[in-house]
Amino acid sequence: MPTFTIGIDYGTNSVRAVVVDTADGRVVGTKVFDYPSGEQGVLLDPKQPHLARQNPADYVEGLRVAVVDALKAAEGDPQFSRDRVIGIGVDTTGSTPLPVDAKARPLAADARWKNNLAAHAWLWKDHTSAAEAVAITETATAHAPELLAPIGGTYSSEWWWSKIWHCLKMAPDVFDAAASWVELADFVPAVLAGVDDPRKIVRCICAAGHKAMYADAWGGLPPKSFLSRLDPKLADLRDRLYDHAYAPGRPAGTLSAEWAKTLGLREGIAIAMGGFDAHYGAVGSGVRTGTLVKIIGTSTCDCAIAPVADEIANVPGICGIVNGSIMPDYFGIEAGQSAVGDLLKWWVEGVCRGGDALHAQLSAEASTLAPGESGLIALDWNNGNRTILVDTRLTGLILGQTLHTSRAEIYRALIEATAFGARAIIERMRDYGVAIDRVVCCGGIAEKNDLFMQIYADVIGQPMLIAGSPQTPALGSAVSAAVTAGAAGGGYDTWTEAQDRMTSLKAKRFDPRHDAKAVYDELYRIYHELHDAFGLPAAAAANAGARPDLGTLMKRLLALKERTVNRVAAV
Amino acid sequence: MPTFTIGIDYGTNSVRAVVVDTADGRVVGTKVFDYPSGEQGVLLDPKQPHLARQNPADYVEGLRVAVVDALKAAEGDPQFSRDRVIGIGVDTTGSTPLPVDAKARPLAADARWKNNLAAHAWLWKDHTSAAEAVAITETATAHAPELLAPIGGTYSSEWWWSKIWHCLKMAPDVFDAAASWVELADFVPAVLAGVDDPRKIVRCICAAGHKAMYADAWGGLPPKSFLSRLDPKLADLRDRLYDHAYAPGRPAGTLSAEWAKTLGLREGIAIAMGGFDAHYGAVGSGVRTGTLVKIIGTSTCDCAIAPVADEIANVPGICGIVNGSIMPDYFGIEAGQSAVGDLLKWWVEGVCRGGDALHAQLSAEASTLAPGESGLIALDWNNGNRTILVDTRLTGLILGQTLHTSRAEIYRALIEATAFGARAIIERMRDYGVAIDRVVCCGGIAEKNDLFMQIYADVIGQPMLIAGSPQTPALGSAVSAAVTAGAAGGGYDTWTEAQDRMTSLKAKRFDPRHDAKAVYDELYRIYHELHDAFGLPAAAAANAGARPDLGTLMKRLLALKERTVNRVAAV
Repeated sequence: MPTFTIGIDYGTNSVRAVVVDTADGRVVGTKVFDYPSGEQGVLLDPKQPHLARQNPADYVEGLRVAVVDALKAAEGDPQFSRDRVIGIGVDTTGSTPLPVDAKARPLAADARWKNNLAAHAWLWKDHTSAAEAVAITETATAHAPELLAPIGGTYSSEWWWSKIWHCLKMAPDVFDAAASWVELADFVPAVLAGVDDPRKIVRCICAAGHKAMYADAWGGLPPKSFLSRLDPKLADLRDRLYDHAYAPGRPAGTLSAEWAKTLGLREGIAIAMGGFDAHYGAVGSGVRTGTLVKIIGTSTCDCAIAPVADEIANVPGICGIVNGSIMPDYFGIEAGQSAVGDLLKWWVEGVCRGGDALHAQLSAEASTLAPGESGLIALDWNNGNRTILVDTRLTGLILGQTLHTSRAEIYRALIEATAFGARAIIERMRDYGVAIDRVVCCGGIAEKNDLFMQIYADVIGQPMLIAGSPQTPALGSAVSAAVTAGAAGGGYDTWTEAQDRMTSLKAKRFDPRHDAKAVYDELYRIYHELHDAFGLPAAAAANAGARPDLGTLMKRLLALKERTVNRVAAV
Repeated sequence: MPTFTIGIDYGTNSVRAVVVDTADGRVVGTKVFDYPSGEQGVLLDPKQPHLARQNPADYVEGLRVAVVDALKAAEGDPQFSRDRVIGIGVDTTGSTPLPVDAKARPLAADARWKNNLAAHAWLWKDHTSAAEAVAITETATAHAPELLAPIGGTYSSEWWWSKIWHCLKMAPDVFDAAASWVELADFVPAVLAGVDDPRKIVRCICAAGHKAMYADAWGGLPPKSFLSRLDPKLADLRDRLYDHAYAPGRPAGTLSAEWAKTLGLREGIAIAMGGFDAHYGAVGSGVRTGTLVKIIGTSTCDCAIAPVADEIANVPGICGIVNGSIMPDYFGIEAGQSAVGDLLKWWVEGVCRGGDALHAQLSAEASTLAPGESGLIALDWNNGNRTILVDTRLTGLILGQTLHTSRAEIYRALIEATAFGARAIIERMRDYGVAIDRVVCCGGIAEKNDLFMQIYADVIGQPMLIAGSPQTPALGSAVSAAVTAGAAGGGYDTWTEAQDRMTSLKAKRFDPRHDAKAVYDELYRIYHELHDAFGLPAAAAANAGARPDLGTLMKRLLALKERTVNRVAAV
């Protein structure tokens, strides 16, 4: 008898619900709900350009509308029955914390606070807390460096403590009124489960470990002694947060009577642990030992897992390695590139002033070039470097231009730069014992830009595979719900089995081409010379390997160009 | 009683004649003649993209038409009379050698050779002789390094011996048929003087010293022992060339009866020594000790002079230092940048796909930026670096881009890069004892692009002056004719007096602004770090001064950007 789970994906502008057949991952019903508040769902403040908040009421209304309508759509499928829905999974953006009252209700739902932006949800891309992030990094570096080791050495302005501390400083009344704070990823499952006490909200290790410096090694959240150095009120808050965070696979709760009625589902079905969209996207892409999942969009998020038994060390420059953050019994490993699609968008739209047609035209022109033919090399740092340098204050570089260099050549060089950046991440992971033997991509670029994908295959030297689902986070949430329900509940007892059945790859794939890879191996060495020269302090650069001779670098590129042109001419 | 001289300027596509009042440099008649042959006067070969030749018949026809029509135009001036024309001066492109027969006639004028491109004039920008240039440099480096010292250490494919040797190799019949070879700058005066024997052609030190490795130190042209290492036939040719070359000021001859009749002028008037356009352009811009003349166009040619008594040493990386090449008793010092206007043209037309309107728009947008505000820095090497690195195999670099970097910011950064390159040349000259205390510019960019000129003033820290004449080479040739005629002949006995009377500066000038200069001083140090890191061999870069720390370079640019933005905001 078929069973179904629901995956709910909270994005930046909308929430999507999918109803999935657990037998094969087939989507039988779906609905997207656009958040009604603010600008495309984001609350802005003209006086604070770095501010980005969301109205928690949109989350709750979106939950209702998206699931109800997805279920309605599913009823068109002859196999489907509401009785056979066995669980619900939720993924969200993050770190997106919101303050809640003593009944676990969003503070913003209270008339007293509804016009105060600090009382709303602090969206992942809110950057008002830059000063707090710097102070947290400095304080931890000086007094508790172990806290930073699993998160790459730098605490971000996008993360939990930066945001809550900023609220404490800028809106102390909101901070004082908050009984607790909760990540959106934990808030939605708690809503479905009818939790009415913040201390009873089940918190996911995914958000706790990657964004809140939670780890077993120091007993959960950072010690009060550390938080007191930031502000004694943050140490007090620790008592009102949580002592334990959990990996997915166990339930975050069961569906409450009230929400069962609202959605037209059975009361008591499993609610999976919440998780971040990237992590559940990795699950929905079939992540397993040896697989790197790349979610390629404006920026890139890379996810991999490694068995806890392998005792992966801290990998320098990797944003986060957290036990259980993607799947239980595995380290969840997260990395990323700050600008990928955005880098091409900058070139095509910002500089060349074109649109989709120019994207397509430059892509077509760039496709006719052989690797090395342009003589160009670029660094992909226009938005800083997230991994492996963890430095937002790095900038772009393009080198090798002549008076004949075309915009299509630069377009290709920028794609190549992001591919070199991707390779640097993979090599760093491998250097520290994380196996990577296949790469699965998802996101619009992966599905649409063949040139991009072929360059990545050639540069990385691995087949580039594409996830079968265009909605991997929602699918991953549905997988998580199936595992949480368990075989006895009509789902699966293991993640491997659930993924094998419910996730897939597209038939289309991109394999490395031998000649192109050979040229890219040389270009990657040149990229790495520039990477280390401009990205590392002088002393570190000197120790980073063979001393680069930048004085010959332009000539080496020209030699490669001439060799390539001659080879093309000889064909 | 007023007197007049004629200046004739042979450019790449046309020849211009001006009739000038020697009292004040006023132009009383002018005519431009477009060469009729080939593409805009240049003979091309689709199978040899580096080939660029000219038909010597165009030179002779152009001489006749341009001067006859300029004189006709002058007759509209009430002061003018043909009887009062006291001399003719000629400047040309170079090195532009052509083979001649035993009567000093162009070989190409002979029906037997007229369809052979090797028998025509080898235009300055003909680059077919790259291999020969490399071989000459290598041979001289190994066996006669003194030959290379005055020309910056590298022999060019654009120069005399490279071209003649290439002719010998590729068209030995033409080489064998040539009684001698002559630079265009010497050919035209010889035509006017009716010279009918190549050995009697008066050769200018300007071409000989800068392009043919002629110097008193080794008895004129390179010794036969050296030429024999290249090819014994080149050593034989040496006997059919010349033993002496002369500075301007003495006559190259007097006007022949035949040409006096053709032009409607008095027989026997002075014909000045020929010279290169850049050198006579410097004369027409008022070059003197302490003055650098910058001829700013697609590329830039920089000319300065220094008294021979100062015993200027060889200046490393300067293209040429030749006794008497611009004026007698002074070293003529020549430097240049390979791409200036071409760099902006590449950006605006090649990359941004605009025309004159976009040039103007980007210039206007870039004018609103403060120095340092973009956070960008660039190297001006898209066409290699002529001075001070003397390396055609260097390429461009742009650094500091973010996702918000605009094309106007890059446009400005490219202008700044050329200004930094210009400053590097001036600092090198000063380091080796050449005084530079004012800069006079000529060329279209100097007259039209105020942003460009202000950036140069701020970067160089000197007032940027603009030559009064839009035709400084032709004016300089007319000055030379007046000096050659001498006071007794109605002209002047000294160059200083002739220049004071006949040349001028525009009232418009650009003075350095204190705050901008301070920022550019910092940016120039960053430019120089990149310059040495990418332009010098590793060992030389290490010795070139304080060790640069490229690992902090992007952050230093950001700090400068933030300081600038804060200062702008504070105003």
